[in-house]
Amino acid sequence: MAEFKDLVKNIEDKNTSGLYGGDFLQTWEKNDDEIDAVLNTADALRDLRERNISTKIFDSGLGVSIFRDNSTRTRFSFASACNMLGLAVQDLDEKKSQISHGETVRETATMISFMADVIGIRDDMYIGKGDAYMREVIESVKESHEAGILEQRPNLVDLQDDQDHPTQALADLDHIIHELGGVENLKGKKIVMSWAYSPSYGKPLSVAQGIIGLMTRFGMDVVLAHPEGYEVMPEVEEIAKKNAEKSGGKYSKTNDMKEAFKDADVIYCKSWAPFKAMEERTELYGKGDFDGIDKLEEELLVQNANHKDWAATEEMMSLTKDGKALYMHPLPADITGVSAEEGEVDASVFDRYRDELYREASYKPYVIAAMIFLSKFQDPAKALKDLEARGTERSISKK
Amino acid sequence: MAEFKDLVKNIEDKNTSGLYGGDFLQTWEKNDDEIDAVLNTADALRDLRERNISTKIFDSGLGVSIFRDNSTRTRFSFASACNMLGLAVQDLDEKKSQISHGETVRETATMISFMADVIGIRDDMYIGKGDAYMREVIESVKESHEAGILEQRPNLVDLQDDQDHPTQALADLDHIIHELGGVENLKGKKIVMSWAYSPSYGKPLSVAQGIIGLMTRFGMDVVLAHPEGYEVMPEVEEIAKKNAEKSGGKYSKTNDMKEAFKDADVIYCKSWAPFKAMEERTELYGKGDFDGIDKLEEELLVQNANHKDWAATEEMMSLTKDGKALYMHPLPADITGVSAEEGEVDASVFDRYRDELYREASYKPYVIAAMIFLSKFQDPAKALKDLEARGTERSISKK
Amino acid sequence: MAEFKDLVKNIEDKNTSGLYGGDFLQTWEKNDDEIDAVLNTADALRDLRERNISTKIFDSGLGVSIFRDNSTRTRFSFASACNMLGLAVQDLDEKKSQISHGETVRETATMISFMADVIGIRDDMYIGKGDAYMREVIESVKESHEAGILEQRPNLVDLQDDQDHPTQALADLDHIIHELGGVENLKGKKIVMSWAYSPSYGKPLSVAQGIIGLMTRFGMDVVLAHPEGYEVMPEVEEIAKKNAEKSGGKYSKTNDMKEAFKDADVIYCKSWAPFKAMEERTELYGKGDFDGIDKLEEELLVQNANHKDWAATEEMMSLTKDGKALYMHPLPADITGVSAEEGEVDASVFDRYRDELYREASYKPYVIAAMIFLSKFQDPAKALKDLEARGTERSISKK
Repeated sequence: MAEFKDLVKNIEDKNTSGLYGGDFLQTWEKNDDEIDAVLNTADALRDLRERNISTKIFDSGLGVSIFRDNSTRTRFSFASACNMLGLAVQDLDEKKSQISHGETVRETATMISFMADVIGIRDDMYIGKGDAYMREVIESVKESHEAGILEQRPNLVDLQDDQDHPTQALADLDHIIHELGGVENLKGKKIVMSWAYSPSYGKPLSVAQGIIGLMTRFGMDVVLAHPEGYEVMPEVEEIAKKNAEKSGGKYSKTNDMKEAFKDADVIYCKSWAPFKAMEERTELYGKGDFDGIDKLEEELLVQNANHKDWAATEEMMSLTKDGKALYMHPLPADITGVSAEEGEVDASVFDRYRDELYREASYKPYVIAAMIFLSKFQDPAKALKDLEARGTERSISKK
Repeated sequence: MAEFKDLVKNIEDKNTSGLYGGDFLQTWEKNDDEIDAVLNTADALRDLRERNISTKIFDSGLGVSIFRDNSTRTRFSFASACNMLGLAVQDLDEKKSQISHGETVRETATMISFMADVIGIRDDMYIGKGDAYMREVIESVKESHEAGILEQRPNLVDLQDDQDHPTQALADLDHIIHELGGVENLKGKKIVMSWAYSPSYGKPLSVAQGIIGLMTRFGMDVVLAHPEGYEVMPEVEEIAKKNAEKSGGKYSKTNDMKEAFKDADVIYCKSWAPFKAMEERTELYGKGDFDGIDKLEEELLVQNANHKDWAATEEMMSLTKDGKALYMHPLPADITGVSAEEGEVDASVFDRYRDELYREASYKPYVIAAMIFLSKFQDPAKALKDLEARGTERSISKK
Repeated sequence: MAEFKDLVKNIEDKNTSGLYGGDFLQTWEKNDDEIDAVLNTADALRDLRERNISTKIFDSGLGVSIFRDNSTRTRFSFASACNMLGLAVQDLDEKKSQISHGETVRETATMISFMADVIGIRDDMYIGKGDAYMREVIESVKESHEAGILEQRPNLVDLQDDQDHPTQALADLDHIIHELGGVENLKGKKIVMSWAYSPSYGKPLSVAQGIIGLMTRFGMDVVLAHPEGYEVMPEVEEIAKKNAEKSGGKYSKTNDMKEAFKDADVIYCKSWAPFKAMEERTELYGKGDFDGIDKLEEELLVQNANHKDWAATEEMMSLTKDGKALYMHPLPADITGVSAEEGEVDASVFDRYRDELYREASYKPYVIAAMIFLSKFQDPAKALKDLEARGTERSISKK
């Protein structure tokens, strides 16, 4: 990792005014300076923590989380990020709340925000819903702040929506940069975002979309690979194409997994549900047609089962550059013979890359903390230097 | 809002010794000085927070919450209050606990209190139960403290019982005072506590009772309005009558909603269940007669449906003083055409008062924090001045 | 309680290097110096807290808890211990997580530990499972720390496993020491660990085993009493025997409750399930034979019902030394006529010892905090003195 002073220097050179006081949803809404500032701030905060220097910027305050889907690692990542900045996490458990009593989004958003500095939301289940919900929350707290109801305007961190999974994609990017030895080394490298077979249906598209939407900005040769029928959202493909053009990289698509894996530097291989099926599911859900959803899910399982050969097997991995491409996954993976009879990846492949996979995950708390940090400071470089100068020990046991 | 130094001056002039080391249950147990001190302390704590001055009085410690009914805003209000004072919230989720194993109240109360500075309880479901439960908890922690088992005696904050909802009523009062421009302006103003139709049965009476029990202390003309059969507890009506006499205000009751709304300055309009039915429900519950409860609930729904004209409609609101009475509700409301086919309030009325309704809710965290604060300091005015002088920033990002 | 300076002196004299950077599972893995250091550190931390001196050694950081069985007092004890040291508790609720998606123990352990300083686990349901799970977690975080994935290696505190309940046993020991007026007074005292009838089946053996495994180290005359068929794990009995030999105490077993109670100084009387039945249950569970488990539980209830005379009755207690043995229980107890028709203890016995029982429980938060503390400091005596010298107030309201 770069030295702290170099990381701070990098942040100083960037225009982060678009992040200050704002929210972090899809990465493609953020300019290159902003993406870069998140990565450098994440690394700088990690460096401070490794040196046992406290990064608490809040004496008190709440980080509110709303998880509309089960979560372990994102939940803990958000909790970790809040904790290292000094915020207490207060989870809105919709089952324990009175939201069913006909509360509007604006109302809930305001009611949970009287002392909230941050709101983290995961809402990835229905196409067209998660992103829209988050924007409604943002509008709500803005209005309530402007009306003088909220003392402060909480900033939103998108912990996965139906289109993008920005904290995952940025943690993944940070991982790739560290593994390849610097952001400058990404240019020209081939990264494959490949579909893989899973015995479960309906996994979100947002990881795949997040990867093609972000990695195309760094001059990489990005290949999206999937069986016919597993298309992602065309809007996101458009973004990937434009990004690639602008960055001097490539974006292509194939239904041939072998072709995709050939000479790849990085393999990202996971299951997702077809965009069209997800749209249909959202419509059925809207009509309350739960029998229809069950039927659709059965069909999806049958469709999935036609593509059991789509997996990160040893054979497939041997096709990659020197047989040694960096294998990535957001975890948990469906590992053949371990967590699934047949799954996304061979057990031996998974085992060989275990440390890298865990390290990949380790960037997420810092990426989330960086997003929060940049939404709070007009001059984040100075703020980081101030923290270093303050030098409060995180733990006196580390003396 | 008054200046910080004036707020502190107001507190200095009050005798708050009855709050020091004590608990906060029904407002009618507290004298005028004590009620006043809560309001002024709430405003002073809010003022400090707005100026980014930390109000942490605890370096560590727990605020324990027990919610025996679903809750969003009260849960977040309690969490916010604890957080701004430096306490971590630990929720006693009775489903995850071993309480069913035949633990007594005294035992549980002690077991959760070894490091508790505060206990917040919501228990409003059964007439005669919530208040009694809280008093048993108080007795328990007192005894355990006196026996040297607990290092400190946690103070209890009543987050809604079967008779009163003190944090709601005091937040409401603080809101009225700010909207009317000062506590001195309440004298002679007409406030209506009106029943309203809701498609759900069995809403607690404690909000209505809290309002008539508190607002009668400020010389207001308090009118309780409801259809026949929706009487509240006679004991609380007695308190309202005596308060009105003493404060030079009025307390009256009517079954005519129009008469009530006429020339009103403040309209508080929400549904509740008839006291007698709630008593019957408690008895059925005591006998474990759940069929009986279901039957009673059906009857209540039928009874409710006879009074669908009881709602804060545009027509009704037009009868109020200049058609501009302050409309209040503890939220969430049953809004006609939005969260209910027919409900407590017209959508256009609700929309017009949205900002005021949210502001009303914003006082609750500070009221709870004030109750805790006053239970902890013998000289709260000095403590507030000390906090201002200490001048710790709540967030260094606000510099 | 001894003076702070004497407690610190005691710790100074002990070799605690085996605890530093380590984990706390069964007490019998720890040497006498280490057991002693836990007790003295617990008392020293309690003394600081009683003097309103902050014991926060962390500015931020997480204490992660995993409860695989319901819990009130252990949950609150862990939360309290973390809080007094400056850690925020983040609970891994396995129902809200994606662990079912086929995550391995190593994966979960790493994913929750990026900012964890401590992990507390309760897993006592199946013989041979809880302890094994904890050791797997420890191995996992060690490996991930060594691989540079985790910035710090969280230390594990065993909050009850299938063999031992170390935080309970040590809190119990601390209680006995205080009640008998010093550790030196334990020598020769008779303590009975007796089975008792309970209308529920399948209570863990770990409390009984924890008691005989620990109290035999202090020269006590330890008697295990139970009806035939309620044997504990033979391995733990072996440990008890060896401990007794080494400490100059005694370890014996009887199926005669009266004989056991005769002239006893301390009575610990609670229900547990037969070891063999628990083994069978684990096997059935392994096969997914839930009907078999139901059947076994029925059989156990019938078996239990043959021994309703095993209870801490007034008559039994009168057999103890001067009829005044210290009565102990980990709580909650099945109290005859109160929480059970027939149970583990007479209501009048329980009532007479209520204060002592609650005091017994009050040591647990401090014991847990001491375990954490000792895992973090190479020189815990110096660390304690530094905290006293720092003199930060825990609450400024206590001035």
